[in-house]
Amino acid sequence: MEVHATPEAFRAACDAARAGGRRVGLVPTMGALHDGHLALVDHARAAGADYRAVTIFVNPLQFGEGEDFGRYPRTLEADLEACRARGVDCVFTPTPDVMYPEGFATSVRVTGVTERLEGAHRPGHFDGVTTVVAKLFHATGPCVAVFGRKDYQQWRVLARMTRDLGLPVEIVGHPIVRERDGLALSSRNRYLDPDARQRALGLVEGLRAAADAWDAGERDVARLEGLARTPVEARFDRIDYVAAADPESLAPLPERAEQMVLLMAAHLGGTRLIDNLELGVDPRP
Amino acid sequence: MEVHATPEAFRAACDAARAGGRRVGLVPTMGALHDGHLALVDHARAAGADYRAVTIFVNPLQFGEGEDFGRYPRTLEADLEACRARGVDCVFTPTPDVMYPEGFATSVRVTGVTERLEGAHRPGHFDGVTTVVAKLFHATGPCVAVFGRKDYQQWRVLARMTRDLGLPVEIVGHPIVRERDGLALSSRNRYLDPDARQRALGLVEGLRAAADAWDAGERDVARLEGLARTPVEARFDRIDYVAAADPESLAPLPERAEQMVLLMAAHLGGTRLIDNLELGVDPRP
Repeated sequence: MEVHATPEAFRAACDAARAGGRRVGLVPTMGALHDGHLALVDHARAAGADYRAVTIFVNPLQFGEGEDFGRYPRTLEADLEACRARGVDCVFTPTPDVMYPEGFATSVRVTGVTERLEGAHRPGHFDGVTTVVAKLFHATGPCVAVFGRKDYQQWRVLARMTRDLGLPVEIVGHPIVRERDGLALSSRNRYLDPDARQRALGLVEGLRAAADAWDAGERDVARLEGLARTPVEARFDRIDYVAAADPESLAPLPERAEQMVLLMAAHLGGTRLIDNLELGVDPRP
Repeated sequence: MEVHATPEAFRAACDAARAGGRRVGLVPTMGALHDGHLALVDHARAAGADYRAVTIFVNPLQFGEGEDFGRYPRTLEADLEACRARGVDCVFTPTPDVMYPEGFATSVRVTGVTERLEGAHRPGHFDGVTTVVAKLFHATGPCVAVFGRKDYQQWRVLARMTRDLGLPVEIVGHPIVRERDGLALSSRNRYLDPDARQRALGLVEGLRAAADAWDAGERDVARLEGLARTPVEARFDRIDYVAAADPESLAPLPERAEQMVLLMAAHLGGTRLIDNLELGVDPRP
């Protein structure tokens, strides 16, 4: 497994793989890798990528003031070991000053699908995401890139960016990987003490309550949102949003809908967790 | 020579050329081709591109309200003939709805170098330029792209974007091509009646006056700007700017400078012309 810290060296490795006839798959991450990330690597292979590249970069641009950029977990040695064990071919580990040298002045912005939910609660977040991912795409030149659907809106935003800019890469969204009790895997779960870890299940309970009602025929958007919200409200310290949206545009829905994604973001002490569930679209947690 | 109207077909042609071991050079244009554009094609060849692609697209995003998008000259048949005669390999002729289909929501923005001069007088112009050129780069995947330095600030903006986003393409700026009397070639020159065509030489007179003073040792920025401005003021109906700037950042200069670019934009009736000259950097008109 090759490990490169500069875009030039990383790009050269990917170019050589392509020149050798291999299909390059990309899994962009912020490190602190867990089984959810590693499932993305497997998925890249399943999507036909016989050369798998992982990027590990805690991107300062996508963190707002007062967010957890400083304390975001950084576990590079363990991450590299996990990549090696999973058959990753190449890892890109740039530093912020390599990605954003002095004079850096360019951003990629998507409107519309970025405006609600995460976009409303984390101003500038998606500009940071789209800018860094455009750069990572250019550094890699991938055929396919795999993103986790826990960051559901991010996945849709990046699909929109890719289509709009005509980037020659296929965007794949991989289903959420969960713990046995249903909690979505997240690098931020390691912030949780045992009590908070238990309370975090409020997200899963909310999504399951809505899914049960959906299965029983409920299609009223406000009632489904209310069912999802109640356990989160009971267990979390503060809710950013519990909301249903159109699965592709993330736009608000009419009173009733046959397809939706329920999305939630809430705080347990200093830790912010997100989760989501598609209804009328996909399997359940 | 191949001609394609969709990014997919155009990209496939460029991919096939690359797969055959050829270096792809790109010359993005808005059509209405003149010898200045065709010099860019020759320059792409000189820069090592043995497959030369030209794009012809009057990009609505880069025209402001009240500008000449509607009446911008469109001479597709003559353009294709000129490309064929010049040995161009492939031409991309998309329509606005192919480039910006319904739901299009992404933009590429460069700050800093975009803010003064053209950026100040044409709000949104450079966002339109950087967005379309990013798309054209993705559609082409060029090794080298050649731009004319008549659009001096545009050239610097695109170099900034390319570096910042890590686009794997070399940006080349080609010197201004001029008529025998010095007027810079421009698709907009065809708007000029014989009287206006004569008055347009005010730009050249201004640049030459400044260049003569420079050669005599003048380094005072305000005096050089004043010398450049006088003939433009005498001959044109309205000046947008006559200003010296740092050649790379386009930032304002201190009182005296050993390197600069003098840039000007002014109106003759409904026609807006631009010109520029590097001092302490390059040859003269």
